[in-house]
Amino acid sequence: MILILKTGATESQIAHVIERVEALGMRAHLSRGTYRTIVGIIGDENKVREEPLRAIPGVEAVVPVLPPYKLASLDAHPEPSVVDVSGVKIGGGNLAMIAGPCSVEDEPRMYRIAESVRDAGANIFRGGAYKPRTSPYAFQGLGEDGLKLLRDVGAAYAMPVVTEVTDVRCVEVVAEYADMIQVGARNMQNFVLLTEIGKTNRPVLLKRGMSATVTDLLMSAEYVLSQGNSNVVLCERGIKSFDTATRNLFDVAAVPLVQTLSHLPIIVDPSHATGRPDLIPACALAGLAAGADGVHIEVHDCPEVAKSDGPQALLPSQYRELCDRMRQMAELLGKQISPLPKALA
Amino acid sequence: MILILKTGATESQIAHVIERVEALGMRAHLSRGTYRTIVGIIGDENKVREEPLRAIPGVEAVVPVLPPYKLASLDAHPEPSVVDVSGVKIGGGNLAMIAGPCSVEDEPRMYRIAESVRDAGANIFRGGAYKPRTSPYAFQGLGEDGLKLLRDVGAAYAMPVVTEVTDVRCVEVVAEYADMIQVGARNMQNFVLLTEIGKTNRPVLLKRGMSATVTDLLMSAEYVLSQGNSNVVLCERGIKSFDTATRNLFDVAAVPLVQTLSHLPIIVDPSHATGRPDLIPACALAGLAAGADGVHIEVHDCPEVAKSDGPQALLPSQYRELCDRMRQMAELLGKQISPLPKALA
Amino acid sequence: MILILKTGATESQIAHVIERVEALGMRAHLSRGTYRTIVGIIGDENKVREEPLRAIPGVEAVVPVLPPYKLASLDAHPEPSVVDVSGVKIGGGNLAMIAGPCSVEDEPRMYRIAESVRDAGANIFRGGAYKPRTSPYAFQGLGEDGLKLLRDVGAAYAMPVVTEVTDVRCVEVVAEYADMIQVGARNMQNFVLLTEIGKTNRPVLLKRGMSATVTDLLMSAEYVLSQGNSNVVLCERGIKSFDTATRNLFDVAAVPLVQTLSHLPIIVDPSHATGRPDLIPACALAGLAAGADGVHIEVHDCPEVAKSDGPQALLPSQYRELCDRMRQMAELLGKQISPLPKALA
Amino acid sequence: MILILKTGATESQIAHVIERVEALGMRAHLSRGTYRTIVGIIGDENKVREEPLRAIPGVEAVVPVLPPYKLASLDAHPEPSVVDVSGVKIGGGNLAMIAGPCSVEDEPRMYRIAESVRDAGANIFRGGAYKPRTSPYAFQGLGEDGLKLLRDVGAAYAMPVVTEVTDVRCVEVVAEYADMIQVGARNMQNFVLLTEIGKTNRPVLLKRGMSATVTDLLMSAEYVLSQGNSNVVLCERGIKSFDTATRNLFDVAAVPLVQTLSHLPIIVDPSHATGRPDLIPACALAGLAAGADGVHIEVHDCPEVAKSDGPQALLPSQYRELCDRMRQMAELLGKQISPLPKALA
Repeated sequence: MILILKTGATESQIAHVIERVEALGMRAHLSRGTYRTIVGIIGDENKVREEPLRAIPGVEAVVPVLPPYKLASLDAHPEPSVVDVSGVKIGGGNLAMIAGPCSVEDEPRMYRIAESVRDAGANIFRGGAYKPRTSPYAFQGLGEDGLKLLRDVGAAYAMPVVTEVTDVRCVEVVAEYADMIQVGARNMQNFVLLTEIGKTNRPVLLKRGMSATVTDLLMSAEYVLSQGNSNVVLCERGIKSFDTATRNLFDVAAVPLVQTLSHLPIIVDPSHATGRPDLIPACALAGLAAGADGVHIEVHDCPEVAKSDGPQALLPSQYRELCDRMRQMAELLGKQISPLPKALA
Repeated sequence: MILILKTGATESQIAHVIERVEALGMRAHLSRGTYRTIVGIIGDENKVREEPLRAIPGVEAVVPVLPPYKLASLDAHPEPSVVDVSGVKIGGGNLAMIAGPCSVEDEPRMYRIAESVRDAGANIFRGGAYKPRTSPYAFQGLGEDGLKLLRDVGAAYAMPVVTEVTDVRCVEVVAEYADMIQVGARNMQNFVLLTEIGKTNRPVLLKRGMSATVTDLLMSAEYVLSQGNSNVVLCERGIKSFDTATRNLFDVAAVPLVQTLSHLPIIVDPSHATGRPDLIPACALAGLAAGADGVHIEVHDCPEVAKSDGPQALLPSQYRELCDRMRQMAELLGKQISPLPKALA
Repeated sequence: MILILKTGATESQIAHVIERVEALGMRAHLSRGTYRTIVGIIGDENKVREEPLRAIPGVEAVVPVLPPYKLASLDAHPEPSVVDVSGVKIGGGNLAMIAGPCSVEDEPRMYRIAESVRDAGANIFRGGAYKPRTSPYAFQGLGEDGLKLLRDVGAAYAMPVVTEVTDVRCVEVVAEYADMIQVGARNMQNFVLLTEIGKTNRPVLLKRGMSATVTDLLMSAEYVLSQGNSNVVLCERGIKSFDTATRNLFDVAAVPLVQTLSHLPIIVDPSHATGRPDLIPACALAGLAAGADGVHIEVHDCPEVAKSDGPQALLPSQYRELCDRMRQMAELLGKQISPLPKALA
Repeated sequence: MILILKTGATESQIAHVIERVEALGMRAHLSRGTYRTIVGIIGDENKVREEPLRAIPGVEAVVPVLPPYKLASLDAHPEPSVVDVSGVKIGGGNLAMIAGPCSVEDEPRMYRIAESVRDAGANIFRGGAYKPRTSPYAFQGLGEDGLKLLRDVGAAYAMPVVTEVTDVRCVEVVAEYADMIQVGARNMQNFVLLTEIGKTNRPVLLKRGMSATVTDLLMSAEYVLSQGNSNVVLCERGIKSFDTATRNLFDVAAVPLVQTLSHLPIIVDPSHATGRPDLIPACALAGLAAGADGVHIEVHDCPEVAKSDGPQALLPSQYRELCDRMRQMAELLGKQISPLPKALA
């Protein structure tokens, strides 16, 4: 860390700064410039916190030189990680194709959609049993019944399933039924939830919060990793912006940016990023071209009766057409869509 | 609600739209303009959801004419609500002065800070026992021991106390020790937590999320209200912006805006909004001038050793000086700082 | 347009609204809902402005049903436009590859860079002679000498050239030397400049402002088009965001979004969008995959001595490698990089 | 400046960095930490630019230690500046009350509005003769006729006048008729315009751009100051945000922030910041409470026929009531509304 002192910091302030740094077990290296004095802190930066240093009188700014995450960083693991979701690999050239309805709905519909997305090329089936809804009066999901149905549908087509957990008290039951646990954007900084999920060994799909920086996202991944669960897949799904023409702003540059900082796989979710079916195909292809390790897309066979997020769902026929184009793109990039396992364990 | 149909919507699409609207128990009122056809939906808008309507073929946009919240709206309660926190009133001309350290720390320090802020003019004491920290390696709070200490300190000075709950499993214990439960910005859309808190009868301090619109904030209040707990106080504490000179962007206009939409009291938190002690007094006064029902400020007697958020804390002497100015401002505005109760019940 | 009246709008307010609408030569179509009254305005929406209607007592909101631009819209021109820049086509499957240094610098360097980017695959050469710099103390460009040099270099390699104009008094001289005139992000709403450029017949490269919505961008294009110059190429170059890890936020979804609204070609500029050479290739490919009609990239053979924007420039060798990948991507998408003209006219 | 080198920067890269720094006439001070090497640059930071340093191989980040502006900084002028607009003082405890219609309109209306705002307490009259409109089809202002009328109205009531200039070719004529020249938000980074205005001796009202940081705003002021014109008054008028409930987001904290960085006066414009008459009074008072040196408000006697921005104008009666409250606020703060001059020179 580097401390930039204020113009006119007094000698006794400088002495106090050095004293505080040394009290923390570090060495201070003073550099007196023409206008400002700079204090380099030498030692294990991870042992000191930025905040108390900024509160020392005479300190103007604290500049960290290391990222605040460790296990998520490329330093900790220089090769890209590959996460295995019940036989479907994500990362290292293996692409996840996650598809399904926003919510788990009635049984025949679930089988119908699952069959159509599997035939199109999807390798992981999604559906929400617990729905975080902005309105307390909206459909909140089928709960455990939804989890069971989701698992049965997945088993029928040998597709691993992913579903969201919103309540720390449901982590166990979700981990029992699902192959992969999703943390939604609104819970990306629900640290209690992240910690409990970190104690399971289930692969995690961690969605970026709507106002989270890439650093924030990696810090949330660090919560899961620090509990011993290293199977984290990140997901860019759009952030807040002043232009409300699309539901969120798809930050495609986050994909290569994460890859310069972390070994964790990162996929994209153009359904939530844009909220508009007519923009999803272009953004899905853009995500792959930018280097994403997979694409998450909502598919529904009758959006106008969907229990949630209907307007942003692709029809099965649209998804099939997009899969064909994504397959060509994968080939151009020298990647493969991960094959389905023979059967789920 | 109003449906705007696409240019070139066909007659059979229009017929299908009308059919769908009537199937929902509403009446459709058609208006054919020069360029577009508009469908007014007549009936109880709250019975229809926007989403499925947007997914009907031929529909370009859905324009709601009512706000999505009910209990939080001025329609439900045209007079400003007054929330009573163990004898301290908030709203309707009564100002809350919430102050204290970010985290509950050691006992002597807590008594020292509480005494100083009470003497300055604070009427509610704050301190975090469960801290939502971006880093898993940072101080996470003292937990239940912290809650007990906070309650004891409050009792000693006859100040009600407020503390944050981050884990749905801790709602009960927090409700037992604290006079008011805080929902932090990162949990504003933790709907599971909001629902559980709504089942208690404790006053709630609901902080605006960093990327939440005012409508989002009111929808989160609606979650609490819909469970039967009507003691909700909103808090503007800064939102995300492209200018990172301050920690967040203090949206002071949210105060009068909320007052045109809702009866719930709203206070401001210039500590989190700016993250800079030198800007806190100006923003606290601005908040009051804009009509806020109180001010939440972090105070610490030695910021450089604070366990969290030290750099944004005021010193007790700075807080005292600010309280004097806030008292004058209150007088100008015809409001009063709520007096402390004789003793806590 | 649709007027949504306030709850409790009086009969005399409603009558006044209708009177005002009819005074504007339109017909009003009243629709009384359960909660609100809606007034549909029938007639040529372009003849009425939204603002005065919103100021009528009793009116809560005005909802336009047509986009505010006309000549830029797909309604005016349903097929994608193709812009011809001295023989290089942009749009309709023809890709622009614009490359060159940020500023026009010394002569040998300009020839060197031009040769390298032409050999790599670029078809338009760029360089700034007038530089809009945040600091009045920074290099402001070579002015007319720079323009001449740029033209000569372009002629030597049969590449059309594009350069920015920042001063309305220089439009004429820039139009004389350059094949295409660039309007920079900071001048996107310099309406005086847009109007003057609209009076020339030079192709225009119109960059999106840092806080401009896609609608704002199309309105700025409308300024140029309304003066009779229909040769406008839009450029997505990143917008402001709370995450400052990249210089701007690359809004790749703006590409397909523009294509649902307008016939104008749109290219991407990953150099300014990211400000980081290590992210440029991924974003360039993402832009093409999303459907962009070209890519604008800054190239410099010695970034550490560049007179401006050095840190975001690719080296010629990096650009060559990227061009190879872009060529493959173009082929996959069924598009072609526009060939260079035999010679410039 | 401080250079943070990349992990694993080689010795030859370090040597090259030092060589480059010394070639720029500065000294390099090396500090080898446990993880990173830091290079402090000693000498006049203003002589080196950040950009080329960031482009040197092995450099990860460049941290400036001085602000990029000089003349606008408190270092250059530690006392608050007072700007004199034809006898009306702004800054140093003197408040500007700028009011008038958005556009200069017909003569009787202008006299009527001017009289009403002067009687209410305004001390500078505003009106736009050249209007920067998003749409090329909207009213563009009366031009030089409008300037003359504005001057005559001001003279009749002994009020200095302020009006916007949008075209560099009109700077001279605007400086002739107006007492103060306004640079609008969309032109805040029109550096050509700023430079020409800097060559006049007219006071300047410089509005913050919608996506400008406070540093950007001060850099634009620096453009004017660097040409010799030191009469710059800054204006906070709202910035872009994801919450579109208000037209812009009123950044009230920018007022005290600017005061920690610069000697220039800063006023607020709640009309443009909120775009809603019902929020203007609260935000005007908040601005004063935060320390602003004045308030800019649009007033129109019949908003529904205003040629521009009608919906955000206060009625004369509303403005009068607000002035009474602002006067009380000024008294509380120990400031005065600058008195009108006896007559204009």
